[in-house]
Amino acid sequence: MKNLGYYNGKIDLIENMMIPMSDRSHWFGDGVYEASSVRNHKIMALDEHINRFFNSARLLKIKLGITKEELKKLLNELVNKVDDSDCFLYWQATRGAEGERLHAYNPDLPANLWVTITPKKITPKSKEFTLTHTEDTRFLHCNIKTLNLIPTVMAVGLAKERGTNETVFHRGNIVTECAHSNIHILKDGKFITHPADEYILPGIARMRLIRACKTLGVPVEERPFTMLELANADEVIISSSSVLCTHAISLDGMEIGGKDPDLYHKLQDYIYDEWEAETSK
Amino acid sequence: MKNLGYYNGKIDLIENMMIPMSDRSHWFGDGVYEASSVRNHKIMALDEHINRFFNSARLLKIKLGITKEELKKLLNELVNKVDDSDCFLYWQATRGAEGERLHAYNPDLPANLWVTITPKKITPKSKEFTLTHTEDTRFLHCNIKTLNLIPTVMAVGLAKERGTNETVFHRGNIVTECAHSNIHILKDGKFITHPADEYILPGIARMRLIRACKTLGVPVEERPFTMLELANADEVIISSSSVLCTHAISLDGMEIGGKDPDLYHKLQDYIYDEWEAETSK
Repeated sequence: MKNLGYYNGKIDLIENMMIPMSDRSHWFGDGVYEASSVRNHKIMALDEHINRFFNSARLLKIKLGITKEELKKLLNELVNKVDDSDCFLYWQATRGAEGERLHAYNPDLPANLWVTITPKKITPKSKEFTLTHTEDTRFLHCNIKTLNLIPTVMAVGLAKERGTNETVFHRGNIVTECAHSNIHILKDGKFITHPADEYILPGIARMRLIRACKTLGVPVEERPFTMLELANADEVIISSSSVLCTHAISLDGMEIGGKDPDLYHKLQDYIYDEWEAETSK
Repeated sequence: MKNLGYYNGKIDLIENMMIPMSDRSHWFGDGVYEASSVRNHKIMALDEHINRFFNSARLLKIKLGITKEELKKLLNELVNKVDDSDCFLYWQATRGAEGERLHAYNPDLPANLWVTITPKKITPKSKEFTLTHTEDTRFLHCNIKTLNLIPTVMAVGLAKERGTNETVFHRGNIVTECAHSNIHILKDGKFITHPADEYILPGIARMRLIRACKTLGVPVEERPFTMLELANADEVIISSSSVLCTHAISLDGMEIGGKDPDLYHKLQDYIYDEWEAETSK
């Protein structure tokens, strides 16, 4: 197949897939999701994504109605149905519904399970990001990977309008994360990143960067940092499941980072080597 | 028809309606909505709802692709297709999409238009509400009527778990609104309600209550009020498009309000009389 859509057991091309109007994504964005890269038909960091998915569902009291092992098996089967070996794998669960649009839910109904798989390669190592920024007006559940993504959509739209690759969110002067990636800085040989609290998504690429730092002997500070620290950082690093580790070189046209290429490349090499090893044939 | 579902021109029973997987409600809750009551096949406060709908869409840069007059005509036609004369009318617009799940959007694509109509009567005058409360962790766009409603869903779930009718949101000690209604207090003959800013939905029933107060010579204060003021209010009033004007009598089991029944009933009578006049045969 050239791409794949899945909904509660039904499989077809995404463009042919139809979803019942009763699905609670329609009225409330009432669901949680995950996404990962696929190379050589192998899903990157699958266990970590599945653990986070189950945690998101638990926090929103969504009953998944599937075990971790069953979900792993299903996802591995589905990525093998797609022709391209390098893909973007996305899945979500929307809270079970009984028909009518009602805020109140039946906690016993199992969720609806969705999957999409589309051909895509991860961002190459050579990519450099340009940034813009906006006030972070999102809700206080950014640690949960939900389908309530309007502020993210608007921030991505803002980046596009301003001709940049990403938008940095900040609460007042404190940098939280980007529209669809985490953001970190290198300063005086240290790796500094916002703590994994309700203001940011606990990114799996972020967690792997922290692990890489520890292995490589780079001190890690998990603490809030300011827009000024971002502007004065030695390097500004962007990470997500499709942008494993890339540095940013400008913020609204002002040059940032680029002052510690050795450490940046050391970290980036480590992350890409790990990814290649985990997704080799 | 016993109920009605509509999507981009297609009409069927809600339970038969199917939605293309590409709709952006599926991935981002990327849309805005409105709801109103219908009596004698007449839509309550239609112009006010349509104006708010267009304002919500404008704030999120969603291109509706329909005029106010066309939408009014369509909604009036649709409510006449349903057997019941008393209904809940709901409609929404989701941002136009081109297939793949991408945060970035094409600003030129017209929205997808959805409507559902289900038999329902508005809450009777005699209804008394019981309340619980929770911290308001929602985003700072509560003035826009969007499909990003997970915190609302969770708050409604909380009310259900605690055996109450509604959940009061508060930011710290400041009362904002309820999960799916506005909340106001009467104190010493004055009507006090949170200002219509980014923390609350500018409710149409709320606006009509303010107008009623002005007509009846009741002083109105649009200012934040505290949980303590709520607990000590003479009356606590709940309003929405389906709960026109009802008082609350308890907060987590503690008795509240009920100390100015004359003014409460005067306001309630005014609001219900207005509704009856506007929706008479």
